[in-house]
Amino acid sequence: MESGCYKKLDKHLSVVGKSPEMTGAREKVTGKGKYTVDMKLPGMLYAKILRSPYAHAKILEIDASEAERLSGVKAILTYKEAKLLYVPGHGRNVDEFALDDRVRYAGDKVAAVAAESNDTAEAALEQIHVKYDVLPALLDPAEAMKPDAPKIHPELSNLKGNFQVVHKKAYGDIERGFREADHIVENRYTTSRVCHCSLEPHVCVASWNEEGRLTMWSSDQTAFAMRDSLCNALNLPMSKVRVVIPVHVGGGFGGKYGSAEGIVCALLARKAGRPVMLELSREEEFYTTRTRSPCIFETKTGFEKDGTFTARYVKAIVDLGAYAYGAVMAERAGFYHMSLYRCPNTAYDGYGVYTNNPPSGPMRGFTSTPIDFAIESDIDEVARELGMDPLELRLKNSIKTGDVIPYNDYDVTSSGLDQCMLLGSKRIGWERRQKNPGEVEDVKKRGIGMGIFIHFAPKLAGPNERSVGCATVRINDDGSVNLFLGTPEIGQGLTTTMAQIVAEELGARLQDVNVTVADTEKTPWGVVVSGSRTTVETGGAAKAAAVDAKRRLFEMASKLLKVPAGELLSRDSRIYVSGTSDKGVSFSELLQRSDVRAHGDNIIVCTATYQMPKYVPPFGAQFAEVEVDTETGQVKVVNIVAAHDVGRAINPTIVEGQIEGGVLTGIGYGLTEELVLEKTTGQTINPDFLDYKLLRAADVSKIETILVEPVDPVSVFGVKGIGEMGAISVAPAIANAIYNATGARIRELPMSPERILKALRTRRE
Amino acid sequence: MESGCYKKLDKHLSVVGKSPEMTGAREKVTGKGKYTVDMKLPGMLYAKILRSPYAHAKILEIDASEAERLSGVKAILTYKEAKLLYVPGHGRNVDEFALDDRVRYAGDKVAAVAAESNDTAEAALEQIHVKYDVLPALLDPAEAMKPDAPKIHPELSNLKGNFQVVHKKAYGDIERGFREADHIVENRYTTSRVCHCSLEPHVCVASWNEEGRLTMWSSDQTAFAMRDSLCNALNLPMSKVRVVIPVHVGGGFGGKYGSAEGIVCALLARKAGRPVMLELSREEEFYTTRTRSPCIFETKTGFEKDGTFTARYVKAIVDLGAYAYGAVMAERAGFYHMSLYRCPNTAYDGYGVYTNNPPSGPMRGFTSTPIDFAIESDIDEVARELGMDPLELRLKNSIKTGDVIPYNDYDVTSSGLDQCMLLGSKRIGWERRQKNPGEVEDVKKRGIGMGIFIHFAPKLAGPNERSVGCATVRINDDGSVNLFLGTPEIGQGLTTTMAQIVAEELGARLQDVNVTVADTEKTPWGVVVSGSRTTVETGGAAKAAAVDAKRRLFEMASKLLKVPAGELLSRDSRIYVSGTSDKGVSFSELLQRSDVRAHGDNIIVCTATYQMPKYVPPFGAQFAEVEVDTETGQVKVVNIVAAHDVGRAINPTIVEGQIEGGVLTGIGYGLTEELVLEKTTGQTINPDFLDYKLLRAADVSKIETILVEPVDPVSVFGVKGIGEMGAISVAPAIANAIYNATGARIRELPMSPERILKALRTRRE
Repeated sequence: MESGCYKKLDKHLSVVGKSPEMTGAREKVTGKGKYTVDMKLPGMLYAKILRSPYAHAKILEIDASEAERLSGVKAILTYKEAKLLYVPGHGRNVDEFALDDRVRYAGDKVAAVAAESNDTAEAALEQIHVKYDVLPALLDPAEAMKPDAPKIHPELSNLKGNFQVVHKKAYGDIERGFREADHIVENRYTTSRVCHCSLEPHVCVASWNEEGRLTMWSSDQTAFAMRDSLCNALNLPMSKVRVVIPVHVGGGFGGKYGSAEGIVCALLARKAGRPVMLELSREEEFYTTRTRSPCIFETKTGFEKDGTFTARYVKAIVDLGAYAYGAVMAERAGFYHMSLYRCPNTAYDGYGVYTNNPPSGPMRGFTSTPIDFAIESDIDEVARELGMDPLELRLKNSIKTGDVIPYNDYDVTSSGLDQCMLLGSKRIGWERRQKNPGEVEDVKKRGIGMGIFIHFAPKLAGPNERSVGCATVRINDDGSVNLFLGTPEIGQGLTTTMAQIVAEELGARLQDVNVTVADTEKTPWGVVVSGSRTTVETGGAAKAAAVDAKRRLFEMASKLLKVPAGELLSRDSRIYVSGTSDKGVSFSELLQRSDVRAHGDNIIVCTATYQMPKYVPPFGAQFAEVEVDTETGQVKVVNIVAAHDVGRAINPTIVEGQIEGGVLTGIGYGLTEELVLEKTTGQTINPDFLDYKLLRAADVSKIETILVEPVDPVSVFGVKGIGEMGAISVAPAIANAIYNATGARIRELPMSPERILKALRTRRE
Repeated sequence: MESGCYKKLDKHLSVVGKSPEMTGAREKVTGKGKYTVDMKLPGMLYAKILRSPYAHAKILEIDASEAERLSGVKAILTYKEAKLLYVPGHGRNVDEFALDDRVRYAGDKVAAVAAESNDTAEAALEQIHVKYDVLPALLDPAEAMKPDAPKIHPELSNLKGNFQVVHKKAYGDIERGFREADHIVENRYTTSRVCHCSLEPHVCVASWNEEGRLTMWSSDQTAFAMRDSLCNALNLPMSKVRVVIPVHVGGGFGGKYGSAEGIVCALLARKAGRPVMLELSREEEFYTTRTRSPCIFETKTGFEKDGTFTARYVKAIVDLGAYAYGAVMAERAGFYHMSLYRCPNTAYDGYGVYTNNPPSGPMRGFTSTPIDFAIESDIDEVARELGMDPLELRLKNSIKTGDVIPYNDYDVTSSGLDQCMLLGSKRIGWERRQKNPGEVEDVKKRGIGMGIFIHFAPKLAGPNERSVGCATVRINDDGSVNLFLGTPEIGQGLTTTMAQIVAEELGARLQDVNVTVADTEKTPWGVVVSGSRTTVETGGAAKAAAVDAKRRLFEMASKLLKVPAGELLSRDSRIYVSGTSDKGVSFSELLQRSDVRAHGDNIIVCTATYQMPKYVPPFGAQFAEVEVDTETGQVKVVNIVAAHDVGRAINPTIVEGQIEGGVLTGIGYGLTEELVLEKTTGQTINPDFLDYKLLRAADVSKIETILVEPVDPVSVFGVKGIGEMGAISVAPAIANAIYNATGARIRELPMSPERILKALRTRRE
């Protein structure tokens, strides 16, 4: 870890900026951590879901009588009981039922069984006989966009054809911009369908009590939104449903929220009168859990001789699949397009299209990662056209502190982007890149490339979505602190980071702070962990609650020490009079004074909410050095340098870990990962780790992380979101490095050996 | 149920005063409710405690090597590892260790074992070889009080001999009072050692995580005090220990808090590295769980010819047993003595004495029930001496609204005591009582008697004990309400009553309110459920939190409806403009408005504390009609009329249930129940339901309840504590009824057939 040139004088901080051990790490590495899947309730049944082999069909008849007679089968559910139970999703869409009499992709849910064992449930699925009326399937977005294409969601009468989103934005005069350009570069990029691959699958356990109260445990990314969706679907008051996300969740990456499985599981448990566990198999994880949206980007860039942009246009086509969880991406990619570089004339046309493919949706760097591949590959093409150093071109045109983003008039209060570029290029050895790409005669060619990013997630939330942090701080009689957060810990280190923020603000010993997360009966409301928002938003609330609790402590200490509260300081769970070293009182002494105790003045429970006054985007520059085997098409990633403007790293080790994990995701996205659908049936043909080609830690040579910490005046402790950033610019950096090595440009993801060999052949021809 | 003459116009109340079904009742009656004892954690071990056969001994040596070698034994604990871990108790005493090298009663803990099964643990106990140095045991308080008696707690150097408490209080001039009396009555009463007999025994489960966090589930009456005592003993921050009291607890009655078992269980679990359950057997329940304190009361009452009291004196000797959990009673009985009747000259000498008997402590009506037997029997004797109707004597001398209690200068803000006496005497048919006790010639003689009571518990808490209620109200987006309370539901109906208070104050639908209790990671701080304080104190906090939440709702509604908040009313989860029926908005509509949601203004979490500005004592008069078989000594209770000043019954059915349960306790205390200790060894000889003679519901003919509801200006909704009241005056009412039937006076509890026959013989002789 190397700190950026903006590093502040942090001498007044005692906990923030350090890297204490991550809470829960010991339980994870010793295998003792209990996940949802480890639960076992007395009498618990196991559920399985029957899935459609057809990409599009109407269910004419379901005969479950044979399955019902199987010994050990306790409940069967079909659309007859679950239709009209909407699955609330990501914002606007109400296009999916828990179960339906229509299936819209190969793998869509048809019926569900709860039985004494998983095996019995599986066996029962085979005894459920379904008569389908198979309908024509639209597997290609281009087909689905045709005016005469059959509607996949005829019930959504407000939609035109299969378009869920048609989003057009323009600033300046795009036509004039192109007219005035010295050069115009046009390209077409396609990105792939990839999967989150959380090590823990989607799993939930539902249990009802005698009075109709539902408790659900889940490996979800949200407790409260899941509670609300269950209440909506099942018509229950929110006070009577408890959703618990256990302290250990094996990853989420955007794939674990708002799913139909929870409702199905709850309905099965109610019908059977027993608790039910529903765990998705690895196969189901691959083909039913909302992949990253495959996209097509058509780009057109106009620029002057000196590299100044005159016009930038992107058309995006997003394959939503059967349900519209990815809809928002078709809009927000436009924001991304318009915010990373300065340009007076920009336009964006975005289309989110229903197909009969598996539904796509949020995934790490949801609205940034696919389009960044197109934009940052394009920048290299522009630089080549100009004969300019792509680093120089980026430094010239990229957004700077104080700039206003036209899309939403936000001004950039701090950007460490230029520093990321400068520090990162130095570290990777930018001067070593090929001057004449592809000219070296070796079979194995080396090259260096880069990509940059901005990221934007919260505050663009849908009109009805809260982008607010919430936290409760409780001080106990011994001065120890409980922090309650409604947001789950999904492995990102939330509990550690939040404890550091509260310990810092309160002046408490870190080891005295305990964090409780994501249980709708334990914690205040909490937003879904998504959009790299938690440290900023929930951290802001945690700090605010700590400020309030500290005020209470200082008021008491002020009376006791006969010193104005404004002259007090706290550190290590002790309150001092400023300027003295001996005059003071420990939290514990203060709170256990008999007069304070007797009147309950030491009962300190402070709840605070926090909304960012304005969004503070993170930035970064990622560099790749690759070695391309021109005979096999194999690409070896020699080194990745990830230089990130993280605002402030509350816990640098956790931040680095997040970035490294993201980089791995980015390498897989760039080179190997892809869910492949059979062209005629739409069935997923590689739903397993081996054929999907998920990378392992050992597949990566070297990742170097540089943390740049500019002073941001807006955010809490100056932090910026970091969870998704590692993934964004890795694929274009690799594409640009491959180009630098070989002179061959790959515009399709993943950049597989086949595609590389093909591109090399094209170049030679 | 019949309401008292003070019944208010409650038309403005919609939920309070009604009797909705008790939460959890269905789970209880269907047997589906899960208690602590039903828990089963993966890898859980079972613990047993080795107990001393000697009432007093020093442990010279413990050889556990054989036990350790037994297959399935996972951890053994002796004083070597647990000494110096104090068991915090009821207020002041620090006289008990988790395990000690000294045993102080027959049944005291010596060692503990955790093993794969209860049977293995039991077997291991037999393989632990202990060498004792047996010491002389003090089994009679009179012996223990002698100046030359050996000290049972020599380590408590500040104590004089075996006296834990010597408490003397006097008002007026007691000598002069007796000199001026026309009559003086002197008596001596003894009360018995009885047991709480909770249907669920003491049971706890301890589990540690990899980071040294402890979670404990327990059937205790307190989550937070248990957490604090574990932290004290084990030197852990309070934030890192979670204590959960499950929603179902099978009774407490004062017997379930502050015990050593929790610490032993936690230590075993830490040593074994696995979860441990420790459940006391029924035998242990009887002889180790702090019985009601056996007492001796010497009374002396001076009075004028017209029944006016001139002097009242009581000397109380309380057998604390080996540990001083009952110490406070030796003081507070003095308060009781000085508060029930007006008298210008009163004095009290109280002694709390250590013996080598099983420890005694709090039990339903802790400081009231034993002394009420003496005082209320005495009043009948005074009436007989005067030839006066005992009802008339009580009406003449009992404390009235506006009186000031000399003991602590509290004024009585409301008393329904006279009304209780008048209504109860009418109901029992007071005029049917024998004019000449014992003169009827039948073998089976009927008689009617009565007793009255005041009760006092909170606000006399120790100097370091908080008598404060605390509650958090959370409003969810759909307007439903979660109420969080740190106090446990032990079957008393807390969750129902508190939901009613919050629903009433907030104007919410009762079915939308859910109550979460007693989990140190879910709820704000909560006091132990004891002293009939919960509805008053915690209810006060629940109301205050609801007031705050309602203020937030009304502020929002005021903006929306453009009407000052002061003109708004709420009912059925809807806010109305006062005086209109159609203008308004439902909680749900209000909170789900997109502007409100987006900014998180609908995140409403309000925590409040409440301390009673002054104590509001409950009162009551209880009447018994009995039939005494003068040949067998058997007493049949024909009818009990319990007329109680309950302030206001939030849920009349629950109040009646509490009173009825208390009456049953009182009948057992009066007639059958007694833990009998062997005279020379101090061993309990009847530790089972049969020999202990616990009454069953079927043993009681009839209980009639009268609720008197005077307007109290101080307490929340006018409520008074009711949990313990049913038990207090039943025994003296029965004693007085037996006297009325037979002319024989019994001054020892229980009033067994043997004692009745003996008294009848004495009378005849």
